[in-house]
Amino acid sequence: MCELLGMNCATPTDINFSFKGFSQRAGVTSDHADGFGIAFFEQKGCRLFIDCQSAVHSPLADFIRNYPIKSRNVIAHIRKATQGKIELENNHPFMRELWGRHWIFAHNGDLKDYWPQLCGQFMPVGTTDSERAYCYILQELRYRFGKDEPSLQQIFDFLAEVSPKIAEYGTFNFILSNGQALFSYATTNLHWIVREWPFQQAHLVDVDIEIDFSQVTKPEDRVAVVATAPLTDNEVWHKYQPGELIWFQDGRVQQTAHTTIQRLVNAG
Amino acid sequence: MCELLGMNCATPTDINFSFKGFSQRAGVTSDHADGFGIAFFEQKGCRLFIDCQSAVHSPLADFIRNYPIKSRNVIAHIRKATQGKIELENNHPFMRELWGRHWIFAHNGDLKDYWPQLCGQFMPVGTTDSERAYCYILQELRYRFGKDEPSLQQIFDFLAEVSPKIAEYGTFNFILSNGQALFSYATTNLHWIVREWPFQQAHLVDVDIEIDFSQVTKPEDRVAVVATAPLTDNEVWHKYQPGELIWFQDGRVQQTAHTTIQRLVNAG
Repeated sequence: MCELLGMNCATPTDINFSFKGFSQRAGVTSDHADGFGIAFFEQKGCRLFIDCQSAVHSPLADFIRNYPIKSRNVIAHIRKATQGKIELENNHPFMRELWGRHWIFAHNGDLKDYWPQLCGQFMPVGTTDSERAYCYILQELRYRFGKDEPSLQQIFDFLAEVSPKIAEYGTFNFILSNGQALFSYATTNLHWIVREWPFQQAHLVDVDIEIDFSQVTKPEDRVAVVATAPLTDNEVWHKYQPGELIWFQDGRVQQTAHTTIQRLVNAG
Repeated sequence: MCELLGMNCATPTDINFSFKGFSQRAGVTSDHADGFGIAFFEQKGCRLFIDCQSAVHSPLADFIRNYPIKSRNVIAHIRKATQGKIELENNHPFMRELWGRHWIFAHNGDLKDYWPQLCGQFMPVGTTDSERAYCYILQELRYRFGKDEPSLQQIFDFLAEVSPKIAEYGTFNFILSNGQALFSYATTNLHWIVREWPFQQAHLVDVDIEIDFSQVTKPEDRVAVVATAPLTDNEVWHKYQPGELIWFQDGRVQQTAHTTIQRLVNAG
């Protein structure tokens, strides 16, 4: 399994505080040590950093912990390999282009015997169930809307339809962004929090670091953070309901959908 | 305009020596200071680092200069903006997926009034002529070969056909790789060198650094380096002929084609 971290903000914000705590789970407070990745949108541009080393020991992760990249949409992932070897091409997040935008996707969970029919427009580079699911989502988005880029509302409605169908195959917690919004879906473990004015102090769970956000923010700042498990121990995190899809926009919840997942009957 | 750097190797090799010289041209020995990018293939995986800052001053470039990533195919680019603003999405190299492989492309030159018809499968994220040309190449590759991944020979033959047609619009020096081979094409400025046993000393043009490759290589190593202008002053670099396409494989020239470019008549 793996762990997910996402951030969606009203104004460009760095993720250094959250990433410092999150990356401890890649070997110190947990064992997700088979690679990591993090993607930062900057306008339409996107920077994707991936490494097969653990986010605790990787020099690249160290660079990211200390180099503040300001972004309005960030997705990070630490990996514990279940399907697919420890190879660079199996590291999340995955990046593809659709409608002239980069799309970034990271998954936590395990889809059993999941081999969707892929027509060729989006093909997995690696060998994970996660990348197959991602390619399928993009393929179906393109199939549904053709050459015309859909609105964020249409993308949300589409995800509310397709996500529970993929979730029939197993655990399907994911974060997806095209740089305009952050979409997140959970069948088991995912939590979110919104930080806004008046900002408070926050203390990390995984390492003894505290920050007083009121000292480093402006009133117009607002930040939504999504994580597999809460990153701080003195704030109230909301747990996703099974089958819940949340669309974050400008650092707040824009819309929520509750989907129903039909579990595949194991006939074996 | 911009400058290009490419490397194709028989065994995974780091590019630190070449990149140290090359990146000096982003503000010290030349003025290509509007951003940089570098992509490293590691098997099928690919790491792409891009930044809007100059490769002289960027902390990311500094990290790359000092962190040896071993790769068999590397493409780097330093940018002096001609078309497209200084935005992250306009930084080369560009990355897309086709036939389950990452494809990396960087361009030096300027294509005038170049607006190829793009059907939607590969669309530019930024606003450069370069990314439009890249999307067109991938679209036509996909159109020509459909769902079936072509051989490297077929890709080479295709590039020999399509490259001079794009070059009708202006200067078109490029480096392209899908991780299996490195293809390079020049209409004006591009140089190459192959280093192999018995290795010699090399001294950079742009900064007073010398290396004795015989001390850091094994007999089976072999490295082809492609650069806009020669990176060293004590080795013999080969200049591309106008319209020359070279396919590098395992650190050596696999095949060369000489194409003829019809210049568009300016009717204005």
